[in-house]
Amino acid sequence: MSAGPAEADWAAALAAVRGIPADARILLVCHVNPDGDALGSMLGFGLGLRRLGLRRVRATFPGPPEVPETLRGLPGEELLVPATDADPDPNLVVCFDAASESRLGELVDRLVTADIALVLDHHASNTRFGAVNLVDPRAAATSVIVDELLTRLGVPLDAEIAECLYVALSTDTGSFRFEATTPAVHRLAARLIATGIRPGEISRRIYDTRPFGAVRLFGEVLGRARLEPAAAAGRGMVWTYATLDDLVRHGQRPCVLEALIDSVRCTAEADVSCVAKQTSRDEWAVSLRSKGAVDVSRVAVALGGGGHRFAAGFTGRGAVEQMVDGVRAELDAALLDSEPGRP
Amino acid sequence: MSAGPAEADWAAALAAVRGIPADARILLVCHVNPDGDALGSMLGFGLGLRRLGLRRVRATFPGPPEVPETLRGLPGEELLVPATDADPDPNLVVCFDAASESRLGELVDRLVTADIALVLDHHASNTRFGAVNLVDPRAAATSVIVDELLTRLGVPLDAEIAECLYVALSTDTGSFRFEATTPAVHRLAARLIATGIRPGEISRRIYDTRPFGAVRLFGEVLGRARLEPAAAAGRGMVWTYATLDDLVRHGQRPCVLEALIDSVRCTAEADVSCVAKQTSRDEWAVSLRSKGAVDVSRVAVALGGGGHRFAAGFTGRGAVEQMVDGVRAELDAALLDSEPGRP
Repeated sequence: MSAGPAEADWAAALAAVRGIPADARILLVCHVNPDGDALGSMLGFGLGLRRLGLRRVRATFPGPPEVPETLRGLPGEELLVPATDADPDPNLVVCFDAASESRLGELVDRLVTADIALVLDHHASNTRFGAVNLVDPRAAATSVIVDELLTRLGVPLDAEIAECLYVALSTDTGSFRFEATTPAVHRLAARLIATGIRPGEISRRIYDTRPFGAVRLFGEVLGRARLEPAAAAGRGMVWTYATLDDLVRHGQRPCVLEALIDSVRCTAEADVSCVAKQTSRDEWAVSLRSKGAVDVSRVAVALGGGGHRFAAGFTGRGAVEQMVDGVRAELDAALLDSEPGRP
Repeated sequence: MSAGPAEADWAAALAAVRGIPADARILLVCHVNPDGDALGSMLGFGLGLRRLGLRRVRATFPGPPEVPETLRGLPGEELLVPATDADPDPNLVVCFDAASESRLGELVDRLVTADIALVLDHHASNTRFGAVNLVDPRAAATSVIVDELLTRLGVPLDAEIAECLYVALSTDTGSFRFEATTPAVHRLAARLIATGIRPGEISRRIYDTRPFGAVRLFGEVLGRARLEPAAAAGRGMVWTYATLDDLVRHGQRPCVLEALIDSVRCTAEADVSCVAKQTSRDEWAVSLRSKGAVDVSRVAVALGGGGHRFAAGFTGRGAVEQMVDGVRAELDAALLDSEPGRP
């Protein structure tokens, strides 16, 4: 795993922000379908820039401008504008939690039109597409990098900034459960909570706000889950699916299904979990999770998608059973490939 | 909320442990049906005593001697003995996470037969039933008090002790989500992880090990959940139930149902959640959870049970619908009682 930003990168980032006049047009951009880390990092940094006296800070993301329900009401939300209203040629553009230009959708041209582009991210696959890149694959979340940059900029941590960064840190570490949860992550959480934010209240909002219809829908979908042994190594795979008809019947929007994989991957007998979410008559968004023994990104890449060792996905077509057969076959291949002695 | 232990209590506890000879018989006891905090605190402290050179340390709890599946394999497990084999008259007995003598079941007589009884707990309702009581209702978990006592005893934190305390701390804070998760809790987590323990691996073991049959069972039970408005204040209650027949059909033991309430209480429209688990032909163990607006312990006490503002329970009889009607009636009464101006 590569190291974090060099001191020269930090110096360049500080210079880019400090050198800018108070009325400069600053555009913050995070990836399409923003999650807690993308949105929290972006808004927390935006509030920090405002504290520095920068007046024209706007934040946006590509695609539909709706913020996921569990992430609504974050401090700094007032900085958000729809992508269609975003400044076409800002003085500074800052990108959050996006591993590559493609994650910026229709906003990708700002990398060219802006005077300078700054990239803040923690994905190992980051392509360093900015003029200045603060990329640290060891960081549990992009918000860890935002916190360090704000600290170096001399922005005092306050409760509003802390709430944004706390939501980012908590969601991207699976509520402090993932392996990347280092002592430094907990020390940051301690500093954030010390500003007076309420972890209980915030956590209820981001984790305990599933519509009742979704609770029943999850029930139906879990009730049809299946467990299959993966031929090559006897490692089980648990899988299930949700159709468009399921959503309609329970009156739910597709975004409620994002948490579904978490209710499936807890299965003790399975190393790999797979959830297929129907997106159109003949198309499925398929999510894969691994507990570590199998690199599910290899499975996803083989099926035209991408991701990481522990979490990946692809777009599937046809009948769900056949699609799952395809996943199983690639899973077996990945297991064989991961034998010692193979490249 | 009352303050933590006085310095005199700490001094008495230190004296009780330091004054004991290396071959003294020490019995550690936690509450019946031990959870992560009870078991982790007890075993972590037991390992700490062993590090001090105390050779005859045993740990136990009343009732069936089985450790819940998700808590198996903890360091210090070798200290455990069934309650039936526990020393009848130890030199020192130390009680963990038990609010009152009644939580010690058949082991309660050790409070009399032991030369000295030390109580470590964080429940506000603790009755101070020991000769020496280290009770701190502000502590997020009993393990926080254990950590402080071990520190004062000069026991260096190692990875085995840290794993026990980490499991205790994580489970009792709902993975660092509950309101009691102070900066000090995160600083403790940072210190524990710094010993080299693997938070990802440990979290998978304690949170992601639901048998496949339980996943399907949860599906069925969530699929029959109902949402009801509580008359007095329009606050919703979500409820569901699991029968003995459900358990048999899915090949599951009753303990898998302990996590069920967590899949229910996330319901956005409900302030209160209620899960009834059938325990015999005509009897149900009913769990109640509140998001804060209602004190569910008042409901539980009115129905012959007990608990706290956020979590309570009682034993119900008869048809599940009638039982839920009873809960609703008490819930309405509790809502009326909680109006300003009432005692």
